[in-house]
Amino acid sequence: MPELRKDPIIGRWVIIATERARRPSDFKATEEIKASGFCPFCNGNEDKTPPEVYSLRHNHSAPDTPGWSVRVVPNKFPALEIEGDLNKRGEGVYDRMNGVGAHEVIIETPNHNASLGDLSEGEISNVIRAFQARILDLKQDDRFKYMLIFKNHGSAAGASLDHTHSQLIALPIVPKRVSEEIQGAKTYYLYKERCVFCDIIQQETKEGIRVINENDHFICIAPFTSRFPFESWVLPKAHDIYFEDITNQEIGSLAHIMKDILTRIKVVLNDPPYNFLLHSSPFYEKDIRFYHWHIEIIPKLTKVAGFEWGTGFYINPTPPENACVFLKEAKI
Amino acid sequence: MPELRKDPIIGRWVIIATERARRPSDFKATEEIKASGFCPFCNGNEDKTPPEVYSLRHNHSAPDTPGWSVRVVPNKFPALEIEGDLNKRGEGVYDRMNGVGAHEVIIETPNHNASLGDLSEGEISNVIRAFQARILDLKQDDRFKYMLIFKNHGSAAGASLDHTHSQLIALPIVPKRVSEEIQGAKTYYLYKERCVFCDIIQQETKEGIRVINENDHFICIAPFTSRFPFESWVLPKAHDIYFEDITNQEIGSLAHIMKDILTRIKVVLNDPPYNFLLHSSPFYEKDIRFYHWHIEIIPKLTKVAGFEWGTGFYINPTPPENACVFLKEAKI
Repeated sequence: MPELRKDPIIGRWVIIATERARRPSDFKATEEIKASGFCPFCNGNEDKTPPEVYSLRHNHSAPDTPGWSVRVVPNKFPALEIEGDLNKRGEGVYDRMNGVGAHEVIIETPNHNASLGDLSEGEISNVIRAFQARILDLKQDDRFKYMLIFKNHGSAAGASLDHTHSQLIALPIVPKRVSEEIQGAKTYYLYKERCVFCDIIQQETKEGIRVINENDHFICIAPFTSRFPFESWVLPKAHDIYFEDITNQEIGSLAHIMKDILTRIKVVLNDPPYNFLLHSSPFYEKDIRFYHWHIEIIPKLTKVAGFEWGTGFYINPTPPENACVFLKEAKI
Repeated sequence: MPELRKDPIIGRWVIIATERARRPSDFKATEEIKASGFCPFCNGNEDKTPPEVYSLRHNHSAPDTPGWSVRVVPNKFPALEIEGDLNKRGEGVYDRMNGVGAHEVIIETPNHNASLGDLSEGEISNVIRAFQARILDLKQDDRFKYMLIFKNHGSAAGASLDHTHSQLIALPIVPKRVSEEIQGAKTYYLYKERCVFCDIIQQETKEGIRVINENDHFICIAPFTSRFPFESWVLPKAHDIYFEDITNQEIGSLAHIMKDILTRIKVVLNDPPYNFLLHSSPFYEKDIRFYHWHIEIIPKLTKVAGFEWGTGFYINPTPPENACVFLKEAKI
């Protein structure tokens, strides 16, 4: 069972792997995606993954057989384990609990060679539906307080398999980064009686210089305080607290803007490695009306070094206003 | 002039480069250290750097000539600029100020082929003296509130030149990560009337399973909540608030333990890329008695991916207790 440990100084949690702990010789100088011919995420290899927990299937095909367009399976090497209780305990200044959680893989298409941005809007809508379905299911487990959906695209962004996929991790605690956003949004709300994300959207719409694209329901911006070159955020224009409340019409609109920004990033930056992460509200948090879900897309173009680790302060060599011009003018 | 921008949600600051802003084509897929024959940090090339602000010299040699053992120069491509005032201003929900600060390079030795851990304890002591001298000097500039000393070793850790060097950045604000540590240490102190770092040292000394080494004045531990495999912290055993108050005797002791841990990391992990960062107290902060300076050393063995960016929560595949055994048993 992995272990969750809490830092007594700033309250940051860490997941410590206890089984398959890596030894010094397990770290290669450069870890690349294995270019073996075999892919467990391809059509016909369904028995090479743990049994599926969700799929979108044609023609009444049986689970764990071909005939799917999106498929969700537990991660074969999970960071957290789904069975067990938390068993919280202290030890002097330290806190630990069992590493209980869900860690699943969303296989976005059976097509080995497409990236997420290459899929049709209809196919991307299906991926978004899978995200929604898994949140609604895992939310019923009262051990979990938060769920993060994220994607590592490309080896430099942390992907270990080539076949396009995203991941979800359901956690027994609300992570620090999300708590900080919630706390910040709450402080702003108490002071102004408005949502800080709504105010950002209003100001960006008015100024225009950081708006990459927008449609009926969503806006895509280069944030004023982009930490990384070409960082892009997608936000619902209406004040929406929970991603999982997304309507069918909004799903189509989100698929449209996600395909648009991922294609722009691919064209302008020559298919760079990137991460995206979906920040929604914690499950069952009382009084969360001031939060506003959104997706952050981070191309991996620079290296995070000592200064950033030491300060939590980022040096961004490309102003977001410039990044916005390049992304808007992309020939797509 | 670079710009400092403050995020309205969580209060994180970002440095936005405005001159020499990087365009999409400026980002190479893999940025490696240039293996050109010329090195501006080598003996005899003193005129290829900005004029030195500090050096330790033999035989009364003149500034910016050979004859030095440690040399500190302004960074040729600084993240912040030393001249100018802050000119803080708001713009709707956003805050900005001029990117005023110091960004200097500490060239640790004239020897092109040695790494910091290869230097003698006497030479490392001289590097520590340079750190101390630069803090004491920059502290007199009342525009600055904090100074970080850090090192990027190896291309994957962000180094852009091979010749061993560390860096310092003096900032007009206290960075988020440091404020969080200070706030956490203060909360602990108010509750327990003890320093959380002192309590950690006491518990680690008693348990022994995460102590890599210690000497008269310092202890080196694998932290209970290590975010990264083989992360190592060096702390003064006595409750010391400011690094720059270090005595001559303590400098020798710190040089000894730094050489020891850097050599162990080099041997066990085959000279990995790493960052180190020195966390000391902010300048002129009132009532800072609960803080305890320390050095964090982070070997760069894994990639930080979407989950970490999305949560501020780390997955560490090597328990610190295991890392400690490997580092302690290193044949050095």
